Amino acid sequence: MYMTFQAATPKKQPVPDTMRALVFRGPNQIAVEQVSIPRPGPGEAVIRVTLTTICGTDLHILKGEYPVKPGLVIGHEPVGVIHELGVGLSGYAVGDRVLVGAITPCGQCSYCLSGDWSQCGGPIGGWKFGNTINGAQAEYLLVPNAQANLAKIPDELSDEQVVLLADIASTGISAAESGDVKLGDTVAVFAQGPIGLCATAGAKLRGAGFIIAVESDPIRAAMAKRMGADMVLDHTETDAVEEIRSLTGGKGVDVAIEALGTQATFESALRVLRAGGTLSSLGVYSGKLSVPLEPFAAGLGDHKIVTTLCPGGKERMRRLMELVRHGRLDLRPLLTHTFSLDQIGEAYELFGQRKDGVIKVAIRP
Amino acid sequence: MYMTFQAATPKKQPVPDTMRALVFRGPNQIAVEQVSIPRPGPGEAVIRVTLTTICGTDLHILKGEYPVKPGLVIGHEPVGVIHELGVGLSGYAVGDRVLVGAITPCGQCSYCLSGDWSQCGGPIGGWKFGNTINGAQAEYLLVPNAQANLAKIPDELSDEQVVLLADIASTGISAAESGDVKLGDTVAVFAQGPIGLCATAGAKLRGAGFIIAVESDPIRAAMAKRMGADMVLDHTETDAVEEIRSLTGGKGVDVAIEALGTQATFESALRVLRAGGTLSSLGVYSGKLSVPLEPFAAGLGDHKIVTTLCPGGKERMRRLMELVRHGRLDLRPLLTHTFSLDQIGEAYELFGQRKDGVIKVAIRP
Amino acid sequence: MYMTFQAATPKKQPVPDTMRALVFRGPNQIAVEQVSIPRPGPGEAVIRVTLTTICGTDLHILKGEYPVKPGLVIGHEPVGVIHELGVGLSGYAVGDRVLVGAITPCGQCSYCLSGDWSQCGGPIGGWKFGNTINGAQAEYLLVPNAQANLAKIPDELSDEQVVLLADIASTGISAAESGDVKLGDTVAVFAQGPIGLCATAGAKLRGAGFIIAVESDPIRAAMAKRMGADMVLDHTETDAVEEIRSLTGGKGVDVAIEALGTQATFESALRVLRAGGTLSSLGVYSGKLSVPLEPFAAGLGDHKIVTTLCPGGKERMRRLMELVRHGRLDLRPLLTHTFSLDQIGEAYELFGQRKDGVIKVAIRP
Amino acid sequence: MYMTFQAATPKKQPVPDTMRALVFRGPNQIAVEQVSIPRPGPGEAVIRVTLTTICGTDLHILKGEYPVKPGLVIGHEPVGVIHELGVGLSGYAVGDRVLVGAITPCGQCSYCLSGDWSQCGGPIGGWKFGNTINGAQAEYLLVPNAQANLAKIPDELSDEQVVLLADIASTGISAAESGDVKLGDTVAVFAQGPIGLCATAGAKLRGAGFIIAVESDPIRAAMAKRMGADMVLDHTETDAVEEIRSLTGGKGVDVAIEALGTQATFESALRVLRAGGTLSSLGVYSGKLSVPLEPFAAGLGDHKIVTTLCPGGKERMRRLMELVRHGRLDLRPLLTHTFSLDQIGEAYELFGQRKDGVIKVAIRP
Repeated sequence: MYMTFQAATPKKQPVPDTMRALVFRGPNQIAVEQVSIPRPGPGEAVIRVTLTTICGTDLHILKGEYPVKPGLVIGHEPVGVIHELGVGLSGYAVGDRVLVGAITPCGQCSYCLSGDWSQCGGPIGGWKFGNTINGAQAEYLLVPNAQANLAKIPDELSDEQVVLLADIASTGISAAESGDVKLGDTVAVFAQGPIGLCATAGAKLRGAGFIIAVESDPIRAAMAKRMGADMVLDHTETDAVEEIRSLTGGKGVDVAIEALGTQATFESALRVLRAGGTLSSLGVYSGKLSVPLEPFAAGLGDHKIVTTLCPGGKERMRRLMELVRHGRLDLRPLLTHTFSLDQIGEAYELFGQRKDGVIKVAIRP
Repeated sequence: MYMTFQAATPKKQPVPDTMRALVFRGPNQIAVEQVSIPRPGPGEAVIRVTLTTICGTDLHILKGEYPVKPGLVIGHEPVGVIHELGVGLSGYAVGDRVLVGAITPCGQCSYCLSGDWSQCGGPIGGWKFGNTINGAQAEYLLVPNAQANLAKIPDELSDEQVVLLADIASTGISAAESGDVKLGDTVAVFAQGPIGLCATAGAKLRGAGFIIAVESDPIRAAMAKRMGADMVLDHTETDAVEEIRSLTGGKGVDVAIEALGTQATFESALRVLRAGGTLSSLGVYSGKLSVPLEPFAAGLGDHKIVTTLCPGGKERMRRLMELVRHGRLDLRPLLTHTFSLDQIGEAYELFGQRKDGVIKVAIRP
Repeated sequence: MYMTFQAATPKKQPVPDTMRALVFRGPNQIAVEQVSIPRPGPGEAVIRVTLTTICGTDLHILKGEYPVKPGLVIGHEPVGVIHELGVGLSGYAVGDRVLVGAITPCGQCSYCLSGDWSQCGGPIGGWKFGNTINGAQAEYLLVPNAQANLAKIPDELSDEQVVLLADIASTGISAAESGDVKLGDTVAVFAQGPIGLCATAGAKLRGAGFIIAVESDPIRAAMAKRMGADMVLDHTETDAVEEIRSLTGGKGVDVAIEALGTQATFESALRVLRAGGTLSSLGVYSGKLSVPLEPFAAGLGDHKIVTTLCPGGKERMRRLMELVRHGRLDLRPLLTHTFSLDQIGEAYELFGQRKDGVIKVAIRP
Repeated sequence: MYMTFQAATPKKQPVPDTMRALVFRGPNQIAVEQVSIPRPGPGEAVIRVTLTTICGTDLHILKGEYPVKPGLVIGHEPVGVIHELGVGLSGYAVGDRVLVGAITPCGQCSYCLSGDWSQCGGPIGGWKFGNTINGAQAEYLLVPNAQANLAKIPDELSDEQVVLLADIASTGISAAESGDVKLGDTVAVFAQGPIGLCATAGAKLRGAGFIIAVESDPIRAAMAKRMGADMVLDHTETDAVEEIRSLTGGKGVDVAIEALGTQATFESALRVLRAGGTLSSLGVYSGKLSVPLEPFAAGLGDHKIVTTLCPGGKERMRRLMELVRHGRLDLRPLLTHTFSLDQIGEAYELFGQRKDGVIKVAIRP
């Protein structure tokens, strides 16, 4: 097993003002521990988490590939109920059901006021939960800049219907938005993990005419069709680049979405792109990333390469919930497994090893 | 009957080089006549029309409300087969099945080279068929700037699947594009005639979260739901403005589409618009158009009012056909009736008087 | 005289915790009064105002044409020094020199998080100073949502160099931005009052190729050339619409900016607009506003009409100060007269009656 | 000397129907030869070239780094007079003075009809002159798709004022447009060769607030200031990346323009870019191009990388001429040397070796 998961400390008498939370102790060391329930400062709120999930990024943190401070509670996809409100907030009451995006912009810094909410305060600065402050795999969660980040959940929507909006849906769908998919565009989406599946859904939502997904896992390939792909190519069995170029009469696609974060998929995305097209990247790259010059027309092809960090904030969450509420988007099929917070070690193992057809896991604190 | 329709001159022996065509002779006077088959000049093509339709604009022409020269063949929505090609064209062959948009931009004037293809050469200049040159309600049709305007039809698509793309689909859908409908937007569409129905489809295609159509005719209201409306309000039974404001928590909609061309619908569209929202107008206005100042925030509401003339050109047609080909758009339910060219007088009467649940009629020359 | 200006109450011993401020008491009734110095709540700040000005909107308020509550301190263009900071702010210190925009978005409501900062919280909601809360024609000013609104002034810039950025420059320039003026565009600007002059400057800054201003006042006409107009037409001596159409070879302009708020200028703006062009309106309209249908191509001309309320927030102010700092924009010539706060009645009279070649007045509390 | 330049064949009696032209015969082999004057087909025109220039790309062709067919007349920046018109053109007459962009879009293919005019027909397809068809370093030049590409020159503009618009101005300026430089942006421009100098001018034209150029050549550094740079950094004497980050308070620039085409400048451009910023690349890359992951925030920085091939077509040329006509842009200082067509070998040598402070050379056939 790739991690040391401390057996949860046995539940004793409920200690007042403490809660159970998943704490990162160092690479491959996480444990459910008893920690203090946070208290909100001015402009902050504390929510009682009712549903959360595990993200691929959490796996990177666990493995020590993305460094965070030992002692941090991780996780960044919270659905919950308002438990306590700090001063300076209006329009909210204790007990309100809320969804909070993985990215929590302040709304008031120069980046936010330029519309670069995800880069709040500086590079990747909007990502705070389970990164720079305690996160959502816990019974309670402190939400910074709560006025900008608490999105009330319509009564008719269940926690399961909205929990994936916090990160993977907002991220995946944003690839189609940042890539400016237009009505009738041909779009290729490389990799159909949770983010790629949502990118496929995003391309459909934006009105792409023809969506080609690339994925070898048959479960994910089937899910890709459910999310909107017109065709799924298995790159282990066919030359996907060649096939896509052929399907587009040699021209290439209008928008190629890269949803894995490898040199191979980035390069393939560029190779299927038409002159004037956009490569919309969601990948988190490590090692080296190079741009093959031939499909890039040596820099003369009017290509665009755009990257997007998950859009957050309560208005983004409200809009995504509108899509769910009116039947445009249903992500429940992606929630393949459910665990309690005490079983979260098991959940990490299943999710990390992609066992049992898992796509996303639900964690109920 | 509101027009004098000349009984078609009896079919005799096929006269070489002549064809039958609907000719406008003056207000309320049209007739199927025998006229010369056109011959293509440089850069032009002639197609044999296999399917066309009647547009609301044709009714305006017939009634003399929109002036065109007597002697003109009218109609602007052609599907056909290439009959003859002028010099200077490449990539086409006689016999190719093609769709031609109602608007035929040259691609080479200052307007086209600024991306204002519909205004080719000057105001409304892209609209040539049945307006400034002979049109499509005929056995043969000369296509100007054919290289920019002949869109080959994929084999798997029937004439019926694509004929409405030439005008009403391109127009209606463009309202959502020009209005820049964003994922999760709330959109109101006023009037569900053929154009409004396509605007509803466009809002859905662009990823609107919540679409409210306004229409009193029950057949069109039902069709609106089929095209993507989440709710249809009957403005003769309810105060649609009040209802829409209430459905949006008092805020108003992100985009309001006006698809009728009256002061009343224009004004209602503005009254349901949120601050910062866009009124996307497809209407052809006559008489007076005034802007109510209170919902317009006296000019301080960051509102946008945009108008759009049907986008044309072969690339637009290709993109719309992609949407049809992959099941995103099916307009066949709108084609409620079919007539031959000789019966076109009957078709005009049915369509003009909105008898028998007609939405659009197919004319087969 | 059109207003009752109460002679300023005589200066006595400085009363601790009180300040002098211009208070609106009802139509045509304003007075400099002694009122309490505000104290900041969470997220708020109080600045000591060092320079401010009078806006055309203040005249509307004074005349009772734009209703505000009696007892309100008016004015919305403050330069000052931080006097006191509320809790929850970071990066600021007492004594910092700051510019605050006329519009003070919260950054955290659904409008702000959609990028509609000026419509913060609802229609025209970003405009708070001297409208819904006390304003800047006072010795001290409470700034709401201070984290989003206090823009530090670079040492090398004087108060006089930046005070007009708060409103008229941000507003005027925004017309060119909202109108999406492109490199080489031909732009017409109707009226060269303070806002129109800044619109002219904005068209120049955005790279318009040819800028035609319309103004009859010779002082303002001369200033228009200084701000960037290539030509100024006097509409009382020539048919400006005809002349502009002729100057553009009959085609019309790409962008027409309306900076007065009358039916006549709105209509002229539309009449000089090319098909596909944009009418960018800064006017505050009263009475009726109607759209002439012929130049509007009956709704088929692909025209856009956009309105813009002054963009605010500290990032906007920072950007505008960058333009001043590097010599792109110098608005000092517009500050034709200077008064103390006690003389503000005189300033209102001069400004309101457009005496003595006044363009803008500086008020030094 | 790096090339074999054939001494021009001696001028004899003028041979009817032949002209003198610079012909590429193979790597490092060019010669002024007597060749046939072209005749226009349908939609084509022939112009008598009155002024042209040599581009950096021509040097690449000459050295064999960019392959073209032996026998081709090279050069792609023509100013001239219409000599003969093919059928199917309107609005032009023999004798009209015209500017033709380096890129000559057809306006009628799917790329052009999508607004990707430079990629006419496929990757880099808009670049025809001196690449896929005969070019401008000749006495006469055939212009394809002439209706879309002949831009009449206003009488008040000289050939020298407009010749550089055909390529380097259109290209350089487009970097600021594609990079969407906004009012008040901070922009860094890497390299101040002819293209980079025009990129600097473009940033100024678009309203950048602060422009930092990077260049070590003192002549070009001085010219950069003339073109609009507020500051020029010599990267051979200072760490330009460090300096730019420091000048922006550690934040980085909004837009970084790369105008050389090397890994080093590309990488530096990325290293000075703020989160959410845009790298606008004009470089023609060879060898390898890699993306450093740290400044790219591993793909999470909301960065955009955009490339642009010179925009062409007559409307683009018209707009650029408007900027010249109204004094917004004066590129004559860049034309440092003048040669006749017979001296073009000398001109290539001077330009290729960057002797004598050369920036651009004028060639008068």
